[in-house]
Amino acid sequence: MENIDAVFKSIDEHQDEFIDLLRESVAIRSVSADPARRGDCIRMSEWARDQLRTLGAETSFWDLGKQQLQSGEELPLPPAVFGVYGRDKSKKTLLIYGHLDVQPAEKEDGWNTDPFELTEIDGKLFGRGSTDDKGPVIAWIAVLKVLKNLGIELPINIKFVLECMEESSSEGLEKGLEDNIDKISDVTYSCISDNYWLGRNKPCLTYGLRGICYYFVEISCARQDLHSGINGGSVPEALNDLMWIMSQLVTVDGQILIPGIAELVAPLTKDEDDLYDKIDFCVDTFKQETGSHGLISDSKKNLLMNRWRYPSLSLHGVEGAFSQPGAKTVIPAKVIGKFSLRIVPHMTPEATDKLVTSYLDSLWAKRKSPNTFKITSGHGGMPWVADFRDANFSAGSRAIERVYGMTPDFTREGGSIPVTLTIQDLTKSPVMLLPIGASDDMAHSQNEKINRENFVKGMKVLAAYLFELAV
Amino acid sequence: MENIDAVFKSIDEHQDEFIDLLRESVAIRSVSADPARRGDCIRMSEWARDQLRTLGAETSFWDLGKQQLQSGEELPLPPAVFGVYGRDKSKKTLLIYGHLDVQPAEKEDGWNTDPFELTEIDGKLFGRGSTDDKGPVIAWIAVLKVLKNLGIELPINIKFVLECMEESSSEGLEKGLEDNIDKISDVTYSCISDNYWLGRNKPCLTYGLRGICYYFVEISCARQDLHSGINGGSVPEALNDLMWIMSQLVTVDGQILIPGIAELVAPLTKDEDDLYDKIDFCVDTFKQETGSHGLISDSKKNLLMNRWRYPSLSLHGVEGAFSQPGAKTVIPAKVIGKFSLRIVPHMTPEATDKLVTSYLDSLWAKRKSPNTFKITSGHGGMPWVADFRDANFSAGSRAIERVYGMTPDFTREGGSIPVTLTIQDLTKSPVMLLPIGASDDMAHSQNEKINRENFVKGMKVLAAYLFELAV
Repeated sequence: MENIDAVFKSIDEHQDEFIDLLRESVAIRSVSADPARRGDCIRMSEWARDQLRTLGAETSFWDLGKQQLQSGEELPLPPAVFGVYGRDKSKKTLLIYGHLDVQPAEKEDGWNTDPFELTEIDGKLFGRGSTDDKGPVIAWIAVLKVLKNLGIELPINIKFVLECMEESSSEGLEKGLEDNIDKISDVTYSCISDNYWLGRNKPCLTYGLRGICYYFVEISCARQDLHSGINGGSVPEALNDLMWIMSQLVTVDGQILIPGIAELVAPLTKDEDDLYDKIDFCVDTFKQETGSHGLISDSKKNLLMNRWRYPSLSLHGVEGAFSQPGAKTVIPAKVIGKFSLRIVPHMTPEATDKLVTSYLDSLWAKRKSPNTFKITSGHGGMPWVADFRDANFSAGSRAIERVYGMTPDFTREGGSIPVTLTIQDLTKSPVMLLPIGASDDMAHSQNEKINRENFVKGMKVLAAYLFELAV
Repeated sequence: MENIDAVFKSIDEHQDEFIDLLRESVAIRSVSADPARRGDCIRMSEWARDQLRTLGAETSFWDLGKQQLQSGEELPLPPAVFGVYGRDKSKKTLLIYGHLDVQPAEKEDGWNTDPFELTEIDGKLFGRGSTDDKGPVIAWIAVLKVLKNLGIELPINIKFVLECMEESSSEGLEKGLEDNIDKISDVTYSCISDNYWLGRNKPCLTYGLRGICYYFVEISCARQDLHSGINGGSVPEALNDLMWIMSQLVTVDGQILIPGIAELVAPLTKDEDDLYDKIDFCVDTFKQETGSHGLISDSKKNLLMNRWRYPSLSLHGVEGAFSQPGAKTVIPAKVIGKFSLRIVPHMTPEATDKLVTSYLDSLWAKRKSPNTFKITSGHGGMPWVADFRDANFSAGSRAIERVYGMTPDFTREGGSIPVTLTIQDLTKSPVMLLPIGASDDMAHSQNEKINRENFVKGMKVLAAYLFELAV
């Protein structure tokens, strides 16, 4: 740990060089959703592999197979990059996950600068992938470069898993990890930098994610669409049934009306309860940023708990009904209502499916409609929660304190990052989410950026974390 | 009336000639919705004008102005054809309305024959416009041809108003009628043949149509769409409010929940009540044809009354929510629910708007949601009902008895034919709907047809009607 100040100094001195490396990677248009950019995705995997190899890692490509497009066409999936730094059995081994692909971006979408040309304005580095997730990947590469230049031995072994299909459901990755399970069975801890601070000013470590269950409620009243003039008043209408069913799921203030859901939720521990008051989060700012007309709670703690540690139920829409602008007098023959539940420990998709199905069935029985009714559940995802007091989080926390001079907030997120659970389950190692970027980085949106300060301090946090982990 | 048998005989003898005339008109692709077919629509108006002129009518074109396309482009509206047969002040004057334009049709849509080439198969004349509405227009022309050939003087004066934009909301027609109000101020009765029998076997005369009120309920919860992972549980969701509001409008069995609506409905008279039992309508066939899983009533009388003489409320869909196949985890920021009420005497759009708005406002107050809420009503249409015992209907009824040997059913329809009210209001004359085609003619659909028998007997009914009207 005596070397850390030298490391920090070198990061400061070489920061422009690392920004150039980020610029180089941003210029590769690795848009995984665009089949026409598949070549760029493969080039991006090659670029990252070459970076790691130059730094002395043993590298290999994991062939993830082919992608079947809806057109029937087959495209090769970009290979995952596997990199190994050190095989010292006396040291711990950290698995670092990151992704090299990006969301689509066009200047015309409303970017102020060319999305694939990293551009610094007022300390902000604008460019697609700058924060999601090329920035964090480059930050790791930078740390290794600095250690190499300074001749400092890595305090732990590192295994990199970098994929290039994350923005397209990480297609192929789970199978890739399973196929190479023997190569990652010695992992002690895992770290993922693919999320963001809760706000703009205070770093955080993320220890929980919600899972998801998605439902389709299909109701049919006739063989084909009817006309509200000719038939209105003669047929119990499917959309009327559906609106009623969907209105019985959650109250205006977000209380889920499905019996048994609340009982599945893990009770609040004192440790967790103690976290909320300290968290740097402003309810008014959240309200302003979402542009919402009202909030379910004005209490910071309740609002965060509703988003992170309690289930929520959202209605998404209706397929099969009239959805265009204007007026159409159709009686839709078949409608499919869509809603989802964000699930939390100790809920499972299986237990949730059972409660949801049973409740919907009871509503349908109560409705006494002659129409046909079918419930389908989509692919469910488990929630994830880690022990924020484990050695991984403690190391992360000390690293942040060293760089920022403050204890990070321990946060959760309301959405899912499925790879988190995949890595935890396959490596049987504790995972930590260590975000580098700020809440206003606009990942997935126009004018994505990472602050120069976040990028540089992020490198320092990652470097310090390596050393803290070895303690 | 002593001549009617000779007229019938001549119609029988010349039927193939009239079918050829129909063939000629079907071949003109007068699709009013297709800007590229505007020339054909104008040609169709010219064709009809020339037919009437050849038969000795005074004809003129009513310039209906221009159509403003969404692209900003302006297209000339096809002119309405005005034809005058006889100006004998001692005779009554009948206004005959028909339309010359048709719905779009492509062989590839599922037609068994070329839609613009009239094709007879098993006594059915297939072709776009064969029944809607070129067939009835040609039937009138055929009647005049026969009378002319036989040298029989018209028992009444006739004024034709034929438009070529009916399938595109009769754009321009109302203004055209208003501009030429002095030319139609002497009309005694009006007759429209632009609907169909209730079934396949028994003729009917139609004395009522429902009107319509269309509503848009807009609810907004945020400035932009939110993510159900990040934000689920924090914001009262607009779609949840909307589903609840829309679930409170009508029961599963079609009872409208808006207070005051039922009180507006004209009471059932004994005369009307007596009509229903005789009507040739089979509930089971209706159920089979709609492919509906259930009906609001299994009683013929209740079902017909629900469709014709009572208001109905139908939900059409939601704009702004997720409506595509698949799963998307959006919380829509702004949703617009759409529903309509079919209105009946003595409801007016104004009175209905007031009750709907007041009920929706009270629901919204009860909901206690912080979201924004806005109700907009679309263009309303009045219901229409005629006295089915007036001289016009009596003449129509006697004409049908003479041709078919049976008293027609007196029916209503659940939809709207707005030109009916326009003509009634502007001519201040009683209007009758006299359908020629059968319920299975597939107007607006693939494989539209008119039965040869309906076409030929229709001509006879129209001829007899002229003479009965003069009595």
